[in-house]
Amino acid sequence: MTLDAFFNPSSIAVVGASDDPDNLAGIIFQGLKAGGFEKPVYPVNPRHATVGGVPCYPSVLDLPAKPELSVIATPAPTVPAVLREHAAAGIRHAIIVSAGFSESGEEGARLEEDVRAIARENWMRVIGPNCLGVFSPSTGIDTLFVPRDRIQRAGRGSVSVVSQSGAFMSCLIDLAAYEGIGIARAVNFGNRVDVSEIDLIDHLADDPETGVIALYLESVEEGGRFVEAASRASRKKPVIAFKAGKRGAAVAAARSHTGAIVGRYETCRAAFRKAGVIEVGTFDEFVDAAKAFAWSEPAGGRRVLVVTNGGGFGVAAADALLDRGLTLPPLPEEQEKRFKAAFPPFYTVANPFDLTGSTCDEDYGRVIGPLLSSGAYDAALVIALTGVKRVTEKMADVLALARAEGGKPVVAVSVGGAFTQYAKRFWESRRVPVYPSPERGAQVLAALAARGGIVARPARPLPSVSPFDGEEEARAVVRDVREAGRSAMLEDEAKDFVHVLGFSAPDHFVAGDVDEAVRAANTLAYPVALKVLSPDIPHKTDVGGVRTGLRTSEDVRRAYDEMMDAVARQAPDARIHGVLVEQMADPGLELIVGGIRDPQFGPVVMFGMGGVFAEVLRDVAFRLAPLAKEEALEMIREIRGAELLKGFRGSPPIDADAVAGTICRLGGLLTVFEDVAEVEFNPLLAYPEGPPTVADVRVALK
Amino acid sequence: MTLDAFFNPSSIAVVGASDDPDNLAGIIFQGLKAGGFEKPVYPVNPRHATVGGVPCYPSVLDLPAKPELSVIATPAPTVPAVLREHAAAGIRHAIIVSAGFSESGEEGARLEEDVRAIARENWMRVIGPNCLGVFSPSTGIDTLFVPRDRIQRAGRGSVSVVSQSGAFMSCLIDLAAYEGIGIARAVNFGNRVDVSEIDLIDHLADDPETGVIALYLESVEEGGRFVEAASRASRKKPVIAFKAGKRGAAVAAARSHTGAIVGRYETCRAAFRKAGVIEVGTFDEFVDAAKAFAWSEPAGGRRVLVVTNGGGFGVAAADALLDRGLTLPPLPEEQEKRFKAAFPPFYTVANPFDLTGSTCDEDYGRVIGPLLSSGAYDAALVIALTGVKRVTEKMADVLALARAEGGKPVVAVSVGGAFTQYAKRFWESRRVPVYPSPERGAQVLAALAARGGIVARPARPLPSVSPFDGEEEARAVVRDVREAGRSAMLEDEAKDFVHVLGFSAPDHFVAGDVDEAVRAANTLAYPVALKVLSPDIPHKTDVGGVRTGLRTSEDVRRAYDEMMDAVARQAPDARIHGVLVEQMADPGLELIVGGIRDPQFGPVVMFGMGGVFAEVLRDVAFRLAPLAKEEALEMIREIRGAELLKGFRGSPPIDADAVAGTICRLGGLLTVFEDVAEVEFNPLLAYPEGPPTVADVRVALK
Repeated sequence: MTLDAFFNPSSIAVVGASDDPDNLAGIIFQGLKAGGFEKPVYPVNPRHATVGGVPCYPSVLDLPAKPELSVIATPAPTVPAVLREHAAAGIRHAIIVSAGFSESGEEGARLEEDVRAIARENWMRVIGPNCLGVFSPSTGIDTLFVPRDRIQRAGRGSVSVVSQSGAFMSCLIDLAAYEGIGIARAVNFGNRVDVSEIDLIDHLADDPETGVIALYLESVEEGGRFVEAASRASRKKPVIAFKAGKRGAAVAAARSHTGAIVGRYETCRAAFRKAGVIEVGTFDEFVDAAKAFAWSEPAGGRRVLVVTNGGGFGVAAADALLDRGLTLPPLPEEQEKRFKAAFPPFYTVANPFDLTGSTCDEDYGRVIGPLLSSGAYDAALVIALTGVKRVTEKMADVLALARAEGGKPVVAVSVGGAFTQYAKRFWESRRVPVYPSPERGAQVLAALAARGGIVARPARPLPSVSPFDGEEEARAVVRDVREAGRSAMLEDEAKDFVHVLGFSAPDHFVAGDVDEAVRAANTLAYPVALKVLSPDIPHKTDVGGVRTGLRTSEDVRRAYDEMMDAVARQAPDARIHGVLVEQMADPGLELIVGGIRDPQFGPVVMFGMGGVFAEVLRDVAFRLAPLAKEEALEMIREIRGAELLKGFRGSPPIDADAVAGTICRLGGLLTVFEDVAEVEFNPLLAYPEGPPTVADVRVALK
Repeated sequence: MTLDAFFNPSSIAVVGASDDPDNLAGIIFQGLKAGGFEKPVYPVNPRHATVGGVPCYPSVLDLPAKPELSVIATPAPTVPAVLREHAAAGIRHAIIVSAGFSESGEEGARLEEDVRAIARENWMRVIGPNCLGVFSPSTGIDTLFVPRDRIQRAGRGSVSVVSQSGAFMSCLIDLAAYEGIGIARAVNFGNRVDVSEIDLIDHLADDPETGVIALYLESVEEGGRFVEAASRASRKKPVIAFKAGKRGAAVAAARSHTGAIVGRYETCRAAFRKAGVIEVGTFDEFVDAAKAFAWSEPAGGRRVLVVTNGGGFGVAAADALLDRGLTLPPLPEEQEKRFKAAFPPFYTVANPFDLTGSTCDEDYGRVIGPLLSSGAYDAALVIALTGVKRVTEKMADVLALARAEGGKPVVAVSVGGAFTQYAKRFWESRRVPVYPSPERGAQVLAALAARGGIVARPARPLPSVSPFDGEEEARAVVRDVREAGRSAMLEDEAKDFVHVLGFSAPDHFVAGDVDEAVRAANTLAYPVALKVLSPDIPHKTDVGGVRTGLRTSEDVRRAYDEMMDAVARQAPDARIHGVLVEQMADPGLELIVGGIRDPQFGPVVMFGMGGVFAEVLRDVAFRLAPLAKEEALEMIREIRGAELLKGFRGSPPIDADAVAGTICRLGGLLTVFEDVAEVEFNPLLAYPEGPPTVADVRVALK
């Protein structure tokens, strides 16, 4: 664990420290003392003999012993020289908090490049510059130069935070202190000249103090490594992420519908999903989920028991749970009977279970533990309103015991002011997370269930992308297109390309004249279609360059002539490469499957229903490629139009497995053929049985 | 204002009071004293001579003076007799807090009927039974029998709460006390034997102390009156609503797709929309919006300025605002230039405006007031993180002044723990609402903008539903169907029905044999369609009972024979009324427009794109009928598929005005023909110009 020195160093130098109360390094120096770091801390500053009453050293070269970690807070222009001294002194770990680097313009960017080069040459690990650095209460590390009376420091705990924003991190630490949520490590990595979110995720995955990893990200720079590190981490502990900046530009210049639809954010979400990272949508959710994961096991499923002493809030909780895809199964009959006999008639013995305002702590215990043990539920949402006198501090023990008895997560909701806040402290002292509204409780249960799903899913080694059988032939197609000086394949080329790779595409020939066209049609099975082939005609239909449903050689002959006339009229200057004569595919359900290549995350695959569904309604799903069959099946289930695949108005259901196979193969295509920038099957025609047919395909090369 | 006596009575009797600390009436008696009610309060209880040290009276008939209001908390079985005594004593207003009525079974329901009858016979107004009653701090009324150490009482203010749930109301009052939100009136109306949410809305609309009406509803009993009262109230002050129990059963037994899609909740939302009620989705939103409306003007539009001292939160706020349909226009050029000259280069002079951690209170003032005055923005979202030393309590004045200077709403966000909570009190003392996360701030701005839209919209008197020209003929169709003993119209009847009412439907004849069919077809313009007419064949296509695209009389002859053969084979016992011979409608964009009749809210109209869009994707909009043209146009804009009406892939845009006209007329149809339970045009074919054609129609009678 090469980053250990940042969190648990044997000694620290603080470079730039002085006794000036506004001096950043001085604040950090004092902060390390205040935070309880008891190992040696050396102030370094050529202009002072002492700092905080201890000897101050002119340079790290003058220190009595080599510090394991150095915190540098000198003005940006001095940092490269300072860092070279560190290298000379053999110091391997530095946090550069100073601002004035790439975030501030060209001059700063040059300085940052210097810093990067020095670090690299000297095998140094550097966090920053332009960052708050590291907070680790168990080891007393605190490089936050934010005032303690404003940003309180949270106590030790198991939540580790990796934040691209310093303000986000400091607010979170302050709020965690206020809410009693313990922190293991918190790192703001700033301009990530060296140590990135990826390195930190990798480190925290193996950090025994870290129980949950909470990420605040604005951008990810190395998508592949991110997915790898986050996947490994998420197999060990929950990883949650808040992504700011959702409205980025589209990923690719749009040469396909897929390119126009896939945005940076969609790609990032696909990466989260692939890596088992649970995305949260709001700051409240971020804090709520971090607390829940710190204190609670994941839920093994989506079946929730709701117990309440306020009917209205029980109803609202049920609404919120159902909205989030959770379920509220009825009570097991046997227990329902028992509870009806045991409780007053005005209790509602059902799910939600309404104990009414006449209840007491003990009632909750009688209900929750036994019902969670019954096997009918995966978790409980307990609404305990404290307006009821006999709901007391003791609820803490009741809920903790019920959780232990049931062996399932228990999430509490209590709504109200002063007494509720007071009671919450008690309940949370037993690590039962309490939330201030039914919706936030429901949202947390959804996260716990999502985590359960991630834990349960089989390890998904990236599917090995075995060479396609027709790979050599396909590469020849690519070569020919390149040699013709084009980046977009003509339709015959694209069809050949996917055909030799084993996708199902209609048989076709290229004809140079009308007689060839008729001969080709006779060789194929009628009906056939004719399509003009020209690098100058991207949209054939617009110039009358497509004829479909031709049933006889006479039809073909007439259509050929009409089509060529129309094209000659409407695109007189187009170079004509011939005419594609193609057997018409059997009618099927129209789908769209496409893929683009993201500069950070690599190949991204999109799936949706054909036509307006994808283009207008954006009813599409994304995954990073290569992808496993199960992921492709998830994509199919995920879209709203999925109902149509199950059979609609009496039509038989579509062979989803075959569709998933095509999605995976398209992902494989993008993975193997790095030359391909975009590929799109639109429409892909799917059938009740057998592989779907690529009715139309676009392939764009880089 | 007949309900005044509930909120500001000149004297009160508390019936059932004793000195037992668990006695509800006793708690209420003490609570009135503790709450500052200084006018006479008489305890009534035949079993006690004094209560709380003052004389107690055996019955309301024995009181020294007639109380204006009585609070009854005696056991349910005694209540009818008690209430009769009230009638005899001439007491006109009673709050019955006692439980044990319709909520507890048949016996209770009978007691409740007695109570209702007594109240009605004696012109009494009754709140309850089974309720917490009324809380009105400015007049000292507090009938809540919940302990003050658990449920703190909020101070006076302008938020009035009407709640169907007692627990919801008491938690809210407690939270309001904690958060410093003032309450005008709060009423929990329980089993609403007399005074309902509608009466209360009506009263509060005219209550000068009430600035905002906040509703918690589980059900609405009289939809029409609700819409009327809420519409009147929302023209005077903001009305917000939280609806619990969203997953109710569908409204109608599904005889049409519309019937299957429209649920109780959708109807309720349509009612809110019609009435200018702003729906909130979560408890947090409910409290957040109530505070904002109490302290802030509505926003005149959706253009938001974001000012922050933490970049990450600024980005997150922008995401959240854009998600909610708000916009972030760039700074006016002139001002951008000025700010760039005035501020340090590392401030981001843009929208979001990032003042960074180097900022101070004054910077906010320099930015917000002038930019809000510029006319470029309708509101400001101000993120002021208190980790920055020079962001202080004074921000309260800065923000209040900026708001005054700009004349626009200012909503603040501050994220953090102890100091943030402390600072928030200061800021909120100037009635600048502060929220704990960027998303909650954004949500509040969306509500303020929604309110602005409601304020700005012209008064919409319900469109007068003038008699349809063909009303008499249409009634004759209904009569014929009734006389035939059917409730579903055959297709020819339904087509006749809508045709005589002025909807555009294809010309058609009913033919009794093949020769008549051919004659009919020759009279119409080819192509034509044939459809079998039988009360026993609801789904004609399934039995081969539809033939389309017939172009010659030969086609018609052959199709007729084939069709009748098919029907005879597949539905041998069906009574055949003949064959509909119909001119085929020109191809157009397929829409669905339907309507059902809700038992509470009356006619509800649904609009969506045809086919799978409505049925599978549920991409539909709802409104109550009758509806104004502008509402129909809103419905069209509201669905995700609206893009398709704007022209898609080169097709010309659809005549949305004509579609809106058809939607309104369908609403009118349901309003005028109270016999019609469901009507559905599916598909309705829409064109670039002119009225859409009703290609298929179902009409079901009650």
